[in-house]
Amino acid sequence: MKFHVLTLFPEMVEAALGTSITGRAMAKGIICLHTVNIRDFSLRGDGRIDDYPYGGGAGMVMQAEPVMRAWESLAGELPAQTRVICLNPQGRVFDQKMAEELAGGEELVFLCGHYEGIDERVLDEIVTDHVSIGDYVLTGGELPALVMMDAIARMVPGVLSNQESGQSESFQGGLLEYPQYSRPEDWRGKKVPAVLLSGHHANVDRWRRNQSILRTLRNRPELLKTVTFDKKDRKYLQALITGQAEDEITQEQAVFLSKLLAITEKS
Amino acid sequence: MKFHVLTLFPEMVEAALGTSITGRAMAKGIICLHTVNIRDFSLRGDGRIDDYPYGGGAGMVMQAEPVMRAWESLAGELPAQTRVICLNPQGRVFDQKMAEELAGGEELVFLCGHYEGIDERVLDEIVTDHVSIGDYVLTGGELPALVMMDAIARMVPGVLSNQESGQSESFQGGLLEYPQYSRPEDWRGKKVPAVLLSGHHANVDRWRRNQSILRTLRNRPELLKTVTFDKKDRKYLQALITGQAEDEITQEQAVFLSKLLAITEKS
Repeated sequence: MKFHVLTLFPEMVEAALGTSITGRAMAKGIICLHTVNIRDFSLRGDGRIDDYPYGGGAGMVMQAEPVMRAWESLAGELPAQTRVICLNPQGRVFDQKMAEELAGGEELVFLCGHYEGIDERVLDEIVTDHVSIGDYVLTGGELPALVMMDAIARMVPGVLSNQESGQSESFQGGLLEYPQYSRPEDWRGKKVPAVLLSGHHANVDRWRRNQSILRTLRNRPELLKTVTFDKKDRKYLQALITGQAEDEITQEQAVFLSKLLAITEKS
Repeated sequence: MKFHVLTLFPEMVEAALGTSITGRAMAKGIICLHTVNIRDFSLRGDGRIDDYPYGGGAGMVMQAEPVMRAWESLAGELPAQTRVICLNPQGRVFDQKMAEELAGGEELVFLCGHYEGIDERVLDEIVTDHVSIGDYVLTGGELPALVMMDAIARMVPGVLSNQESGQSESFQGGLLEYPQYSRPEDWRGKKVPAVLLSGHHANVDRWRRNQSILRTLRNRPELLKTVTFDKKDRKYLQALITGQAEDEITQEQAVFLSKLLAITEKS
């Protein structure tokens, strides 16, 4: 997988992606990073690539021509139909599904904006996907590009070691991750839940699944609407609603679950 | 505003936050970054801070004690009730409102996990907020912490220059940003929309507002449900539905808008 990044801050992008797991994957040649400094394509002697917006208003706008030239400097080497992703809050919201989809490609281009944005005309010309990583405003497109590259890279075969490869599965099933515990069994008087020490795999799995359901209910209940529950899940959900489970939920959560079960039973 | 970051990769965090606008704010002393390397609190000679999870499964878990000691190394200096944010996909989803709220505080602590997560017992002990920046899985908590610090920092007075301060306003109003254009007027045969060159401020504002509405309808229609429309907005929306606007929308979008207008008229 090769990432091309059009940016005003190539060193920052290289330093961040060169760290930890993605850094190891770069050293192994499994992923490859190529940065293009848009400032190198400034039309002016001072290296500036921004100018005032037509129509007035605060902020500066990145001009079309330097961005176009930066893009043209690499376009010739790219496979046909390489996707060019512009990071901005106006885009489609990035999620795990998009990460998996993009991890299937061979090369990707990221265009990082700064200031008040980029002249719309060059975006119309080169960008295939506008993507936002969430509903917040950042000072530039570099961090979102790094977030996307990280999420995509870890889906590329060989990037994660076996020891690292577990987490996404449960998230992909629509539930949040269960709590984790490691040595020692007794830490400052706090004990690991006994079931995890039992060696009874089915019970461990059941406990973890229940904790995932519980955590999703507490933190992100809307995610439960897309989860498929089996018989044992339903038994736990019923126990939660009637107060017969070990874990407690609020009245409001019980009402939410009751409605949810009624809906999924019908369908 | 002072950020403390508990991390395995302090250099990466420092390099990234030290770049561009946040780097300038650090140089001016408006924001301040203090990193704590969790590895310095390893209990073992090899600097490792992870171990196998109880109950089995892929991945390693960060142990409670090194994280606790890293936290204790700075806890004494912190104001009472300083928030400690753990970055993970199980948390509440970060948004602009949370960025503004957090920008009102004086100090913030970020705890960055790696591997399959952190021993739950230390999280129960020290973390006040679990926050996710979006529905995707990353290799660690450093990039999400950087994303949060960037979004929060730009809300701190003095971090953005006047030239940079415009963008968030329109996003905060619930609509996506309108397109921007800069010099030249004619770029490779593509012209700037005439209204932006007219010097007629009211028309410019109206065009921009309409473009924001149109872009939100096309990319993130669900956001329109929280927007308050005035008379002129409604006139534009009606023109879109009946095909009398300059901009075209799909049949599906027209149906969505019709329902939306019917709902907001009633309320």
